[in-house]
Amino acid sequence: MVMSKQIPVIEQILSANDRLAEQNRQKLDSLGVYSINIMASPGAGKTALIEQTVPRLAGKLRIAVIEGDLATSIDAERATAAGAVSVQINTGGNCHLEAQMVRDALEQLPLHDIDLLIVENVGNLVCPAGWALGTHHNVLVASVPEGDDKPYKYPATYRGVDTLVINKIDLLPYVRFNMERFRQGVAILSPGLTTFPVSCVTGEGLPAWLEWLEHTIATFRQDLSNAK
Amino acid sequence: MVMSKQIPVIEQILSANDRLAEQNRQKLDSLGVYSINIMASPGAGKTALIEQTVPRLAGKLRIAVIEGDLATSIDAERATAAGAVSVQINTGGNCHLEAQMVRDALEQLPLHDIDLLIVENVGNLVCPAGWALGTHHNVLVASVPEGDDKPYKYPATYRGVDTLVINKIDLLPYVRFNMERFRQGVAILSPGLTTFPVSCVTGEGLPAWLEWLEHTIATFRQDLSNAK
Repeated sequence: MVMSKQIPVIEQILSANDRLAEQNRQKLDSLGVYSINIMASPGAGKTALIEQTVPRLAGKLRIAVIEGDLATSIDAERATAAGAVSVQINTGGNCHLEAQMVRDALEQLPLHDIDLLIVENVGNLVCPAGWALGTHHNVLVASVPEGDDKPYKYPATYRGVDTLVINKIDLLPYVRFNMERFRQGVAILSPGLTTFPVSCVTGEGLPAWLEWLEHTIATFRQDLSNAK
Repeated sequence: MVMSKQIPVIEQILSANDRLAEQNRQKLDSLGVYSINIMASPGAGKTALIEQTVPRLAGKLRIAVIEGDLATSIDAERATAAGAVSVQINTGGNCHLEAQMVRDALEQLPLHDIDLLIVENVGNLVCPAGWALGTHHNVLVASVPEGDDKPYKYPATYRGVDTLVINKIDLLPYVRFNMERFRQGVAILSPGLTTFPVSCVTGEGLPAWLEWLEHTIATFRQDLSNAK
């Protein structure tokens, strides 16, 4: 009885979120801002990837960051220190960002002066997958010490992803991680997924990631320009 | 409007969960089975800790394991291989176990022949904290490569914990992890928390964890016996 009463309410909330996500997307498109939604387990290296990406693209792309966390402004401080314009969202107990939170954050950012918006979602390999934010592209950051079984155990997140970064490859000599088993799990869920093995400590693999990001944004702009 | 309608429904579901959790606890108490609920980020090493714990206590404690995952029976297979009686719960999309799921799993276990029940929750540092299962003790497994900022960023989970295992200390030489900063964050939320730094790869620190587990179960039995 209780569960059956709940279903229509949840559906209303979901579609409200989708409507807001659509509005966020329109706003970003109208301003020519490309946006990615970075998802990962806690501590996989989302913020580290942002810290390594922002200064390497300085002078080429103007980057803003929306940081999502349950608590603290630790990540926004790190993104700011790396050279990005940043806004921190604290979700309280919420295990994922929602389109409304991103909408509020967008109003605090100088979007006219931004080329790339990076949204760092709450560290969670389950909940963010179900909530559209209006961003253009979903990036998942996996990390080597998490283990090679994660695609198998968190299929919804791995299935909904557009690009995969495998972080902490500098730890490969010290942990049990079978890259082939990991890649097979990914391939089942997302055949042909673009994947970047990187280390945010040594910098290995980052040039390919940055090149992809620049190319993707150039293509986005060309598409927007052609559509006008 | 939509959100205000939702609140009483959610409250009903929560108290239904609490009632079932209470029933689970009564069942476990009546059979003299001590139980722990292990929570952690994906890949922190919950299953590895179980794999290391079960064979080391063979002949002393009879152990059953309930494994919670979104998908697959990978973890139950690992627990079974380690020598435990195991049941796998697949939650579908659910980001945490609930008391009802544990109740169903309890019916599949030979509880009369069990001393310790280990419930491995879904890999998630946010959602499991809010859902009582009826277990006696919450154990959080943190891991060194996740970073030393996690207590600050996931306060609800760290606050609700009874015992903390810090896993993967063998990786300390290879990652940036300030143990003092981590411990300070823990101390703010859970002053005096019992903490076990361990490595499930090298075995370092495991004897203290096992000794604590044996002592805790002995005390539990003594208390049950005194209450009769």
